[in-house]
Amino acid sequence: MTARQLHFNAFLMEAGHHEAAWRLPESNVDADFDLQHWVRLAKLAEDAKFDSLFLADGPALQGSGEFRPPGQLEPLTLLTALVAATSRIGLIATVSTTYNSPYNLARRLASVDHVSGGRAGWNIVTSATQREADNFGLDFTLGHGARYERAAEFLDVALKLWDSWEDEARVGDKAAGRFADPERIHPIRHRGQYFRVEGALNVRRPPQGYPLLVQAGSSDDGKQFAAAYAEAIFTAHQTIERAQDFYADIKDRARRIGRDPGGIKVLPGIVPVIGSTEAEAQQLAQQLDDLRVPEYGLLQLSTILEVPADSLALDESLPRSVVNRPTVEGFQSRADLIVELATREDLTVRQVLSKLGGGRGHHTVAGTPEQIADTITTWFENGAADGFNVMGPALPSGLEAFIEHVLPILRSRGLFREDYTGTTLREHYGLEKPANQFHVRELTRV
Amino acid sequence: MTARQLHFNAFLMEAGHHEAAWRLPESNVDADFDLQHWVRLAKLAEDAKFDSLFLADGPALQGSGEFRPPGQLEPLTLLTALVAATSRIGLIATVSTTYNSPYNLARRLASVDHVSGGRAGWNIVTSATQREADNFGLDFTLGHGARYERAAEFLDVALKLWDSWEDEARVGDKAAGRFADPERIHPIRHRGQYFRVEGALNVRRPPQGYPLLVQAGSSDDGKQFAAAYAEAIFTAHQTIERAQDFYADIKDRARRIGRDPGGIKVLPGIVPVIGSTEAEAQQLAQQLDDLRVPEYGLLQLSTILEVPADSLALDESLPRSVVNRPTVEGFQSRADLIVELATREDLTVRQVLSKLGGGRGHHTVAGTPEQIADTITTWFENGAADGFNVMGPALPSGLEAFIEHVLPILRSRGLFREDYTGTTLREHYGLEKPANQFHVRELTRV
Repeated sequence: MTARQLHFNAFLMEAGHHEAAWRLPESNVDADFDLQHWVRLAKLAEDAKFDSLFLADGPALQGSGEFRPPGQLEPLTLLTALVAATSRIGLIATVSTTYNSPYNLARRLASVDHVSGGRAGWNIVTSATQREADNFGLDFTLGHGARYERAAEFLDVALKLWDSWEDEARVGDKAAGRFADPERIHPIRHRGQYFRVEGALNVRRPPQGYPLLVQAGSSDDGKQFAAAYAEAIFTAHQTIERAQDFYADIKDRARRIGRDPGGIKVLPGIVPVIGSTEAEAQQLAQQLDDLRVPEYGLLQLSTILEVPADSLALDESLPRSVVNRPTVEGFQSRADLIVELATREDLTVRQVLSKLGGGRGHHTVAGTPEQIADTITTWFENGAADGFNVMGPALPSGLEAFIEHVLPILRSRGLFREDYTGTTLREHYGLEKPANQFHVRELTRV
Repeated sequence: MTARQLHFNAFLMEAGHHEAAWRLPESNVDADFDLQHWVRLAKLAEDAKFDSLFLADGPALQGSGEFRPPGQLEPLTLLTALVAATSRIGLIATVSTTYNSPYNLARRLASVDHVSGGRAGWNIVTSATQREADNFGLDFTLGHGARYERAAEFLDVALKLWDSWEDEARVGDKAAGRFADPERIHPIRHRGQYFRVEGALNVRRPPQGYPLLVQAGSSDDGKQFAAAYAEAIFTAHQTIERAQDFYADIKDRARRIGRDPGGIKVLPGIVPVIGSTEAEAQQLAQQLDDLRVPEYGLLQLSTILEVPADSLALDESLPRSVVNRPTVEGFQSRADLIVELATREDLTVRQVLSKLGGGRGHHTVAGTPEQIADTITTWFENGAADGFNVMGPALPSGLEAFIEHVLPILRSRGLFREDYTGTTLREHYGLEKPANQFHVRELTRV
C-alpha cells in the first residue's frame, strides 16, 4: 500500500471519555489507578496497529471528585509502566511547559524514548487554569500569549538539549580509556527570556532524535506554535467545515514558515458511539446521557467559559454576556467552539451539557460501523484530517467496538495498515528522524 | 526467624561502582542506556531477596564524559521501566528537592508507588554542585543550610499532599453517581517560605501511605534532616568507629525529637571486592586500579573539595590550605571524610584517588567471602549498621559474586531472609504504613 494512509491515536481515559462512563455496570470503578486497566487498553490498541496511545493531563484535581474520578496517575510515569507490556505502539503523554523546567523534562522525555526504543511522544500543553497555578505558588496564571511565548522558548531549549549529544559522541574505547569525545557533547549555553540552561543534557540523544512533538491548542497562538513545532496535532471540531478550515490553516501556516505541510499530521478527535443499527447506537448514547450528573457538567462548563457556575441556568441559553464577549484567556478555542455550537443550534445549557458529555467538544458520531467509517473516510479524503484521535465513550468497550467493527471497513478500503512497518513512533507517522543541529555545525568546522 | 535481620540495598550503577569498571573486557560499554542491563541487575537483586535497589542521580553531566559514562537515564523513569520485570523488590530513586516542585514530584512518586504496588522509595537530595544549578538558571547554588531548609519544607508539603486523599475518599457509588466524598479529599493550603501549594494532590494516597523516605547526607544539617524525616539512611564510612559514631548520633537525634530510633535503618555503603582467596581479591582490586585514568579522579576530587584541579599534585599530599580550612558548602561530609582519610593514612593525592576509585569514599573490602561476611556481621552486631548498601565494583559480576558467595554465609548465620515476608518496600524494612495526618483530624471532627 503506497496510498495515503490514516493515522489512529487511541486517546485513553480511565473508564471512558463520556463523563458518566464510570457508572456503567461493566466499568472498572478503580480504572484510574489500576495499572492492569491501562495495560489492557494499550495491548488492545497495539494489537490493532494504532500509531500511538495518548494520555491527557493537568497538574490539579479535576473538579471536586464527587461526580467523576478527579485525578490520575502522572502520565509519563504511566506511559513508562506500559513500555514492557508493548513493543511497537507509540506512547504520548501530556506535560506542561508552564510548570516544568526544560532540563528535567527534556531528560525525562529522552529517557522514555530510550527505554521504549523510540516510541515516546510529548503532547505540549501550556496549562490554562488557576487551579493548576495554585499548586505551583503562582497567584495568577500567565496570560495566553505569555504561556505560548514561554512554551516556544521551552521547546528551543529542549531541542538543543536533545541534540547536545551527537550520535557519534560515545566512543567506548576501553583500551584507551576514552569513553566519549567531549567535542561531540555540546553545552547549549542558552540565555533567554524565561530560561538559562547551560547543558549539555546528561542523557544521550534519544533513538528518535527527539520524541514526537504533539500539540493540541487550537487558538491563534496555539496554531502558530503548532505550525512552528508540532508534528502531530490533536484538535476538536464539531463539523467537517470547521475541521477543513483548521486543516487548511495549519498546513498553510507551516508552508509559510518553510515547513513541509506533510510533516504535520492533523488528527481531530472522534467519539464513536457504535451500534449494529443506528437505533442501537442512539440507545447507547442515551444510556450514557441518562447517567450524567448535571452539576458536574455545569462545573466543567463554567471552568471553560470562565464564569461562575450559578450564572448558567440549565434550561436557558448561554447568557448574552458570554456569547458576546471577547474570547477568554484560558481554554480559548474550546470556549469559542462551545459558544458557536450553542448559538448555531440554539441550545439550552442542559442541551449543551448533553452534547459535551461524551467528548468535551470533540465530534461525537453515533451510528453503525459503516456510518462511522464513512465519516472518517469523508473527513480524511476531503482535507479535514490526516487521521483521528479515537476517544472511546466507555473503555475498553468503545475501543473494542471500534477495532472490531470500524477498522476492518477502513482496511478493506485500503486506508489503514494491516501491520506496522516501522518500529518507532516517528516511523508510524511517516516522519523522518530529525537532523542534529549541532552535528551540522561540527561538520562545517572539521 | 525473629532475631534482628540485615537489610540489603543493591546500589546499581551502569558498569559498576569502580570508576574504571566500564573498561573491563566483560563490561557492557552501553550499560548506561541499555534497559536490559538494568532489568538483569534488578532481577538478580530480587531473586536474592534484597530489600531494595537504588539509583543515585544528579541533574547534570558528571565530568566531561571523556573518561567515564557521564550521564544516565532519569532514575524515576528507569525505576518505572523496571516495575514490570520485578514484583517484590523495593525501587529507590534519587530526586532533588532543589530542582523540583513539590506538587509534581509528590505526584510522580505517588504514581510510582501505585504502579509498583507499594514498592517506591525516594532518596532525598539537595544537590550541591554549581553544574546542576547552571542547568536551572541559578547563578549560585543555595547555601548548604538553605538547601536543607527548603528540603524540610518540601517534605512537609509532600507529606501533606500524600495524605490529602484519605483511604476512604473513593466511594464509587455507581447507582448514586457519587464517585468520591469531597470531604475526605483535603486541600492542603500550604503557605510557607519556599512554597505555596493549594492541593489536594490529584492522585489517591499511595499504597504505602507514602514512598519510603531515604536520605544520604551525613553533614550536621543532613543528619538533623535525616533524624526528622528519613526511614533509611545511606552513608559512607571508612572505619567501624566512624560508622558507630554516626549510627549512635542518628539514633540519638531521632530519640531526642520523639521518633522511634528503630524506625530509621542505617545502611553504610560497602564495596565488596571478592576473591576465593585474599590474593585473588587483591588481584581484582589491582586490575581495576590499573584501569583508572588519574585525570578523571583528579577532576572528581577537585569538585568535591571545591578547589581547582591544578592545585592538586598527584605525588604530593593534599595542600595544607585544603586540610586546614573550614568545611565546604557542597559535599560537606564527603569532603571531610576524604581530608580525614588522607591525613590519617598520610596519603599522596595519587593514593587518595586509588582509595576513592572503587566507591567514592565508601568502605571497600577486598577479601574472601568469609572476610566480607565477617565485616558485615561485625558492623551489624556492634552498633555500626542495620544493613548495607551493596556497591558492586563491577556489574553484574560484583553483585553476582556477593549473592553467590557472601549471602549464603550470612543466611547460615540467621542474619538475612530466605524469602520475602511482605510485599511492600516498607514491609521489607520492617516499617509500618504511616497514619494519615488528615484522617486523625477527621475522626476528632466527626
